[in-house]
Amino acid sequence: MVDILHRVGIKAPVAQVYAALTTAERIADWWTTDTRGNGDDVGGTLRFRFGAGGFDMKVLELDPGTRVLWEVIDGPGEWIGTHVSWNLEQVGDYTIVLFGHQGWKEPVEFMHHCSTKWALFLMSLKSLIETGTGTPDPRDVKIDNWN
Amino acid sequence: MVDILHRVGIKAPVAQVYAALTTAERIADWWTTDTRGNGDDVGGTLRFRFGAGGFDMKVLELDPGTRVLWEVIDGPGEWIGTHVSWNLEQVGDYTIVLFGHQGWKEPVEFMHHCSTKWALFLMSLKSLIETGTGTPDPRDVKIDNWN
Repeated sequence: MVDILHRVGIKAPVAQVYAALTTAERIADWWTTDTRGNGDDVGGTLRFRFGAGGFDMKVLELDPGTRVLWEVIDGPGEWIGTHVSWNLEQVGDYTIVLFGHQGWKEPVEFMHHCSTKWALFLMSLKSLIETGTGTPDPRDVKIDNWN
Repeated sequence: MVDILHRVGIKAPVAQVYAALTTAERIADWWTTDTRGNGDDVGGTLRFRFGAGGFDMKVLELDPGTRVLWEVIDGPGEWIGTHVSWNLEQVGDYTIVLFGHQGWKEPVEFMHHCSTKWALFLMSLKSLIETGTGTPDPRDVKIDNWN
Protein backbone atom coordinates (compact mmCIF):
# COMPACT_ATOMS: atom_id res chain seq x y z
CA MET A 1 0.00 0.00 0.00
CA VAL A 2 1.12 3.53 -0.77
CA ASP A 3 -0.12 6.69 0.91
CA ILE A 4 -0.26 10.35 -0.04
CA LEU A 5 0.32 12.48 3.06
CA HIS A 6 0.31 16.25 3.47
CA ARG A 7 0.27 18.89 6.24
CA VAL A 8 -0.85 22.48 6.06
CA GLY A 9 -1.48 25.15 8.67
CA ILE A 10 -4.47 27.40 8.06
CA LYS A 11 -4.72 30.60 10.09
CA ALA A 12 -8.37 30.22 11.09
CA PRO A 13 -10.60 28.54 13.67
CA VAL A 14 -10.98 24.81 13.19
CA ALA A 15 -14.76 25.15 12.73
CA GLN A 16 -14.19 27.08 9.50
CA VAL A 17 -11.95 24.34 8.11
CA TYR A 18 -14.34 21.60 9.17
CA ALA A 19 -17.20 23.41 7.42
CA ALA A 20 -15.15 23.60 4.23
CA LEU A 21 -14.82 19.80 4.25
CA THR A 22 -18.41 18.85 5.02
CA THR A 23 -20.70 20.79 2.68
CA ALA A 24 -20.72 20.33 -1.09
CA GLU A 25 -21.15 24.07 -1.65
CA ARG A 26 -18.02 24.87 0.34
CA ILE A 27 -15.91 22.02 -1.09
CA ALA A 28 -16.81 23.41 -4.52
CA ASP A 29 -14.96 26.60 -3.60
CA TRP A 30 -11.57 24.89 -3.21
CA TRP A 31 -11.54 21.44 -4.92
CA THR A 32 -13.84 21.20 -7.91
CA THR A 33 -16.69 23.54 -8.75
CA ASP A 34 -18.81 20.53 -9.76
CA THR A 35 -19.31 19.05 -6.28
CA ARG A 36 -22.70 17.73 -5.21
CA GLY A 37 -24.20 15.56 -2.53
CA ASN A 38 -24.25 15.31 1.20
CA GLY A 39 -21.01 15.63 3.14
CA ASP A 40 -22.54 16.34 6.51
CA ASP A 41 -23.98 12.90 7.32
CA VAL A 42 -22.19 9.64 7.91
CA GLY A 43 -23.24 7.37 5.05
CA GLY A 44 -23.86 10.31 2.72
CA THR A 45 -22.31 10.45 -0.75
CA LEU A 46 -20.31 13.28 -2.29
CA ARG A 47 -19.90 13.46 -6.08
CA PHE A 48 -16.86 15.30 -7.41
CA ARG A 49 -16.50 15.90 -11.15
CA PHE A 50 -13.51 17.22 -13.08
CA GLY A 51 -14.42 17.65 -16.74
CA ALA A 52 -15.56 14.25 -17.99
CA GLY A 53 -14.34 12.20 -15.03
CA GLY A 54 -14.54 12.32 -11.29
CA PHE A 55 -15.01 10.49 -8.03
CA ASP A 56 -17.84 9.48 -5.74
CA MET A 57 -17.07 9.22 -2.05
CA LYS A 58 -18.98 7.87 0.88
CA VAL A 59 -18.69 9.70 4.18
CA LEU A 60 -17.41 7.12 6.69
CA GLU A 61 -16.60 9.29 9.72
CA LEU A 62 -17.46 12.78 10.94
CA ASP A 63 -16.05 14.07 14.21
CA PRO A 64 -16.78 17.80 14.25
CA GLY A 65 -13.63 19.89 14.48
CA THR A 66 -11.43 16.80 14.58
CA ARG A 67 -11.78 14.34 11.72
CA VAL A 68 -13.43 13.59 8.39
CA LEU A 69 -13.03 10.29 6.53
CA TRP A 70 -14.23 9.45 3.02
CA GLU A 71 -14.07 6.21 1.04
CA VAL A 72 -13.86 6.30 -2.74
CA ILE A 73 -16.72 4.19 -4.12
CA ASP A 74 -16.63 5.16 -7.81
CA GLY A 75 -14.12 6.69 -10.21
CA PRO A 76 -10.80 5.62 -11.73
CA GLY A 77 -9.86 2.07 -10.76
CA GLU A 78 -6.77 3.17 -8.85
CA TRP A 79 -8.94 5.31 -6.56
CA ILE A 80 -11.70 2.85 -5.74
CA GLY A 81 -11.41 1.57 -2.18
CA THR A 82 -8.87 4.19 -1.16
CA HIS A 83 -9.58 6.47 1.80
CA VAL A 84 -9.27 10.23 2.11
CA SER A 85 -8.75 11.39 5.69
CA TRP A 86 -8.67 14.82 7.26
CA ASN A 87 -7.38 15.17 10.81
CA LEU A 88 -7.76 18.64 12.26
CA GLU A 89 -6.25 20.26 15.32
CA GLN A 90 -6.36 23.83 16.60
CA VAL A 91 -2.86 24.97 17.61
CA GLY A 92 -2.82 28.61 18.63
CA ASP A 93 -4.09 30.72 15.73
CA TYR A 94 -3.75 27.83 13.30
CA THR A 95 -5.81 24.85 12.30
CA ILE A 96 -3.35 22.10 11.44
CA VAL A 97 -4.63 19.82 8.70
CA LEU A 98 -3.09 16.37 8.43
CA PHE A 99 -4.30 14.99 5.13
CA GLY A 100 -4.11 11.41 3.87
CA HIS A 101 -5.15 9.67 0.68
CA GLN A 102 -4.35 6.16 1.69
CA GLY A 103 -4.49 2.63 0.37
CA TRP A 104 -3.17 3.01 -3.19
CA LYS A 105 -2.20 -0.45 -4.42
CA GLU A 106 0.81 0.73 -6.45
CA PRO A 107 2.87 3.93 -6.80
CA VAL A 108 1.68 4.48 -10.39
CA GLU A 109 2.32 7.76 -12.23
CA PHE A 110 -1.30 8.79 -11.60
CA MET A 111 -0.65 8.45 -7.86
CA HIS A 112 2.44 10.69 -8.15
CA HIS A 113 0.27 13.20 -10.03
CA CYS A 114 -2.53 13.09 -7.45
CA SER A 115 -0.01 13.64 -4.65
CA THR A 116 1.11 16.90 -6.25
CA LYS A 117 -2.46 17.96 -7.07
CA TRP A 118 -3.66 17.32 -3.51
CA ALA A 119 -0.94 19.67 -2.25
CA LEU A 120 -2.16 22.36 -4.63
CA PHE A 121 -5.81 21.85 -3.64
CA LEU A 122 -4.79 22.06 0.03
CA MET A 123 -3.22 25.42 -0.81
CA SER A 124 -6.52 26.32 -2.49
CA LEU A 125 -8.35 25.39 0.73
CA LYS A 126 -5.90 27.48 2.77
CA SER A 127 -6.32 30.42 0.41
CA LEU A 128 -10.12 30.10 0.43
CA ILE A 129 -10.27 30.26 4.19
CA GLU A 130 -7.57 32.87 4.77
CA THR A 131 -8.39 35.19 1.86
CA GLY A 132 -11.89 34.23 0.69
CA THR A 133 -10.72 32.93 -2.70
CA GLY A 134 -9.71 29.41 -3.66
CA THR A 135 -8.57 27.97 -6.99
CA PRO A 136 -10.84 24.95 -7.55
CA ASP A 137 -10.91 23.04 -10.82
CA PRO A 138 -11.25 24.32 -13.54
CA ARG A 139 -9.38 27.39 -12.33
CA ASP A 140 -6.48 25.32 -10.98
CA VAL A 141 -3.05 25.01 -12.62
CA LYS A 142 -2.63 22.19 -15.15
CA ILE A 143 0.49 20.20 -14.21
CA ASP A 144 0.12 17.16 -16.43
CA ASN A 145 0.50 16.40 -20.14
CA TRP A 146 -2.74 14.43 -20.34
CA ASN A 147 -5.88 15.44 -22.25
CA MET B 1 9.52 2.98 4.94
CA VAL B 2 7.43 5.89 3.69
CA ASP B 3 7.91 7.74 0.43
CA ILE B 4 7.00 11.18 -0.85
CA LEU B 5 6.13 10.94 -4.57
CA HIS B 6 5.17 13.66 -7.03
CA ARG B 7 4.74 14.17 -10.78
CA VAL B 8 4.85 17.38 -12.74
CA GLY B 9 4.95 18.17 -16.46
CA ILE B 10 7.16 21.07 -17.47
CA LYS B 11 6.72 22.48 -20.96
CA ALA B 12 10.42 22.61 -21.87
CA PRO B 13 13.23 20.43 -23.24
CA VAL B 14 14.55 17.89 -20.78
CA ALA B 15 18.04 19.42 -20.92
CA GLN B 16 16.70 22.61 -19.28
CA VAL B 17 15.16 20.64 -16.42
CA TYR B 18 18.28 18.53 -15.96
CA ALA B 19 20.40 21.70 -15.79
CA ALA B 20 18.11 23.11 -13.08
CA LEU B 21 18.82 20.04 -10.93
CA THR B 22 22.58 19.81 -11.34
CA THR B 23 24.05 23.25 -10.69
CA ALA B 24 23.88 25.02 -7.33
CA GLU B 25 23.24 28.37 -9.02
CA ARG B 26 20.21 27.04 -10.84
CA ILE B 27 18.81 25.06 -7.89
CA ALA B 28 19.02 28.33 -5.92
CA ASP B 29 16.48 29.81 -8.31
CA TRP B 30 13.70 27.36 -7.38
CA TRP B 31 14.45 25.60 -4.04
CA THR B 32 16.47 27.72 -1.64
CA THR B 33 18.51 30.78 -2.52
CA ASP B 34 21.27 29.55 -0.17
CA THR B 35 22.43 26.56 -2.23
CA ARG B 36 26.13 25.84 -2.66
CA GLY B 37 28.39 23.02 -3.76
CA ASN B 38 28.81 20.75 -6.69
CA GLY B 39 25.78 19.04 -8.20
CA ASP B 40 27.36 18.10 -11.50
CA ASP B 41 29.73 15.35 -10.35
CA VAL B 42 28.91 11.99 -8.85
CA GLY B 43 30.29 12.12 -5.31
CA GLY B 44 29.90 15.89 -5.10
CA THR B 45 28.08 17.54 -2.20
CA LEU B 46 25.27 20.08 -2.35
CA ARG B 47 24.51 22.24 0.69
CA PHE B 48 20.99 23.62 1.01
CA ARG B 49 20.19 26.12 3.78
CA PHE B 50 16.78 27.41 4.88
CA GLY B 51 17.22 30.06 7.56
CA ALA B 52 19.11 28.40 10.41
CA GLY B 53 18.73 24.81 9.23
CA GLY B 54 19.22 22.85 6.08
CA PHE B 55 20.45 19.71 4.39
CA ASP B 56 23.64 18.37 2.84
CA MET B 57 23.25 15.91 0.02
CA LYS B 58 25.72 13.70 -1.79
CA VAL B 59 25.22 13.21 -5.51
CA LEU B 60 24.91 9.44 -6.04
CA GLU B 61 23.80 9.20 -9.67
CA LEU B 62 23.78 11.49 -12.69
CA ASP B 63 22.38 10.28 -15.98
CA PRO B 64 22.08 13.37 -18.19
CA GLY B 65 18.53 14.02 -19.29
CA THR B 66 17.23 10.96 -17.45
CA ARG B 67 17.99 10.75 -13.75
CA VAL B 68 19.49 12.48 -10.73
CA LEU B 69 19.83 10.83 -7.31
CA TRP B 70 20.90 12.47 -4.06
CA GLU B 71 21.46 11.02 -0.59
CA VAL B 72 20.91 13.15 2.48
CA ILE B 73 24.12 13.04 4.56
CA ASP B 74 23.45 15.85 7.06
CA GLY B 75 20.42 17.73 8.39
CA PRO B 76 17.40 16.86 10.53
CA GLY B 77 17.52 13.30 11.80
CA GLU B 78 14.43 12.25 9.87
CA TRP B 79 16.12 13.22 6.59
CA ILE B 80 19.50 11.55 7.08
CA GLY B 81 19.87 8.47 4.91
CA THR B 82 16.81 9.29 2.80
CA HIS B 83 17.14 9.58 -0.98
CA VAL B 84 15.86 12.27 -3.31
CA SER B 85 15.35 11.02 -6.86
CA TRP B 86 14.48 12.79 -10.09
CA ASN B 87 13.46 10.72 -13.10
CA LEU B 88 13.01 12.74 -16.27
CA GLU B 89 11.39 11.87 -19.58
CA GLN B 90 10.65 13.96 -22.64
CA VAL B 91 7.06 13.35 -23.82
CA GLY B 92 6.13 15.61 -26.71
CA ASP B 93 6.56 19.23 -25.62
CA TYR B 94 6.80 18.26 -21.95
CA THR B 95 9.49 17.04 -19.63
CA ILE B 96 7.80 14.72 -17.18
CA VAL B 97 9.40 14.82 -13.74
CA LEU B 98 8.81 11.87 -11.44
CA PHE B 99 10.07 12.97 -8.06
CA GLY B 100 10.73 10.83 -4.99
CA HIS B 101 11.92 11.54 -1.48
CA GLN B 102 12.19 8.01 -0.27
CA GLY B 103 13.14 6.05 2.79
CA TRP B 104 11.47 7.98 5.61
CA LYS B 105 11.36 5.71 8.65
CA GLU B 106 7.99 6.98 9.91
CA PRO B 107 5.12 9.13 8.58
CA VAL B 108 5.82 11.90 11.10
CA GLU B 109 4.18 15.33 10.82
CA PHE B 110 7.42 16.75 9.44
CA MET B 111 7.20 14.20 6.60
CA HIS B 112 3.62 15.29 5.84
CA HIS B 113 4.87 18.90 5.78
CA CYS B 114 7.82 18.11 3.51
CA SER B 115 5.48 16.29 1.11
CA THR B 116 3.41 19.44 0.68
CA LYS B 117 6.48 21.68 0.46
CA TRP B 118 8.11 19.49 -2.21
CA ALA B 119 4.98 19.89 -4.35
CA LEU B 120 5.23 23.66 -4.00
CA PHE B 121 8.94 23.67 -4.84
CA LEU B 122 8.22 21.49 -7.89
CA MET B 123 5.75 24.18 -8.95
CA SER B 124 8.52 26.72 -8.36
CA LEU B 125 10.80 24.66 -10.64
CA LYS B 126 8.07 24.49 -13.28
CA SER B 127 7.49 28.24 -13.04
CA LEU B 128 11.21 29.00 -13.20
CA ILE B 129 11.65 27.03 -16.40
CA GLU B 130 8.41 28.02 -18.10
CA THR B 131 8.33 31.70 -17.10
CA GLY B 132 11.85 32.54 -15.89
CA THR B 133 10.78 33.13 -12.27
CA GLY B 134 10.67 30.64 -9.41
CA THR B 135 9.69 31.08 -5.77
CA PRO B 136 12.62 29.65 -3.79
CA ASP B 137 12.92 30.00 -0.05
CA PRO B 138 12.69 32.63 1.47
CA ARG B 139 10.17 33.85 -1.12
CA ASP B 140 8.05 30.70 -0.81
CA VAL B 141 4.71 30.46 0.99
CA LYS B 142 4.84 29.58 4.69
CA ILE B 143 2.45 26.66 5.30
CA ASP B 144 3.44 25.64 8.82
CA ASN B 145 2.95 27.03 12.33
CA TRP B 146 6.58 26.46 13.34
CA ASN B 147 9.16 29.17 14.04
